[in-house]
Amino acid sequence: MNSHRSFHEQQQIRLVVEYDGTRYHGWQAQPRVPTIQGVIEDSLQQIIQQRTLVTAAGRTDAGVHAVAQVASFRVGAARSHRDWRYVLNRLLPSDISVRSAERVGNDFHPRFSAKTKRYEYRILHRHERSGLAWNRAWHIWRNLSVQDMQEAARKFCGTHDFTSFRCMPTQTQDTLCTVVCCEVTHDNADIVFTVEANRFLKQMVRVMAGTCVDVGAGKIPASSISDILEARDRCQAGRTAPPHGLYLMNVTYDGWCSGG
Amino acid sequence: MNSHRSFHEQQQIRLVVEYDGTRYHGWQAQPRVPTIQGVIEDSLQQIIQQRTLVTAAGRTDAGVHAVAQVASFRVGAARSHRDWRYVLNRLLPSDISVRSAERVGNDFHPRFSAKTKRYEYRILHRHERSGLAWNRAWHIWRNLSVQDMQEAARKFCGTHDFTSFRCMPTQTQDTLCTVVCCEVTHDNADIVFTVEANRFLKQMVRVMAGTCVDVGAGKIPASSISDILEARDRCQAGRTAPPHGLYLMNVTYDGWCSGG
Repeated sequence: MNSHRSFHEQQQIRLVVEYDGTRYHGWQAQPRVPTIQGVIEDSLQQIIQQRTLVTAAGRTDAGVHAVAQVASFRVGAARSHRDWRYVLNRLLPSDISVRSAERVGNDFHPRFSAKTKRYEYRILHRHERSGLAWNRAWHIWRNLSVQDMQEAARKFCGTHDFTSFRCMPTQTQDTLCTVVCCEVTHDNADIVFTVEANRFLKQMVRVMAGTCVDVGAGKIPASSISDILEARDRCQAGRTAPPHGLYLMNVTYDGWCSGG
Repeated sequence: MNSHRSFHEQQQIRLVVEYDGTRYHGWQAQPRVPTIQGVIEDSLQQIIQQRTLVTAAGRTDAGVHAVAQVASFRVGAARSHRDWRYVLNRLLPSDISVRSAERVGNDFHPRFSAKTKRYEYRILHRHERSGLAWNRAWHIWRNLSVQDMQEAARKFCGTHDFTSFRCMPTQTQDTLCTVVCCEVTHDNADIVFTVEANRFLKQMVRVMAGTCVDVGAGKIPASSISDILEARDRCQAGRTAPPHGLYLMNVTYDGWCSGG
């Protein structure tokens, strides 16, 4: 082993990050507005005196939360043994936390190595809005049939072209996604739409959740989800659910996952 | 019935209010800082063009939340039939909501008519801090014995002088409180300290919860709670838990309660 050479080698650190997306313009760094990526890169720069790119498994929209986002960055081997969780959590604002940090091989990529991602979309179904969940769930007061929503969710399972369920305009050519699990559960006023898939198009979960709510409200029949998928037309699907009910819950990789 | 006279009579409206206390300097109105009472009185003034006092069951501290605070105000009888929940919720910021509003007799007083109040103190017991619960639970990473905390909580039940468990200095002369229920429950990383009593001294729940955590951490033996109560000395009890884990959950009255 050449110790001089290994000193200059880059090593990759993988983070599991939890955040309250309320104050942020989403994951992706943008000039002049606070973003999760930007804030983590700022903290990293304070530690290693160098601007370093932090890459994530999913670029969450403004207002969207994460329980177990996966991100990574590269540092010189000499620095790779730091307690990154400790030093980052000392600098990060209270609404962003690093749940774990560990060295991984350089062939790991948070997005491209991911097998599936799981999102939850949380709905508060009651008459009056909530002062406590105002930025944590979508408040819906009108009648919803959870049973119809469950039927709609099941129709998303499998491999489909999700063109009807993405925001327009978008540049992605490949619109085929494999949904491995899609279900609706409820506990009193709390309704949760859960979806796990190998990939997601832009705003796909929010359009799926919004459409599911339109089904629950009787605006769209549950049986027409397959037709909407077939139509490959965003206008056929329901509305886009607001961002503040959405949580990135888990990312799975070969032999490891972020959120369990 | 004299309809002219009843037109001028004042009628009382009782509200159940839910709020995220993060942005506020507590319930009680103060000059130049946002408070829950101040914001509700501002909204009321916009509706009835008149400054009206809003009284609450418990004056929560800065950062403390409420699931079912009780508040009331008086308006001329001609205005008492408004849909107060609807009109107030339209004006109130998203982190304060009115869950219900109804006309009650003029002899009702949110604080003096209350039989008991119930608070929950929420603790997140895990190694790493939480980006999502940063303003919703007290993060404790060191070892805690939930069993010892449960034993400590039981010792608070009954009528005691709670001088040792209030903030100093305070003016209240009567320091006897009757705790009808005090318990600690847990579900994975979530530990909840619940206490219901006929009255509470200033910061009493936070000192009780803080002391309970000191018991769980092995700093104070659970068996010494009775001695601490007897001592009537704030220095004998544990630390004051931070405000952001505390929730006012329920207020009970003769034949009615706010939170269930």
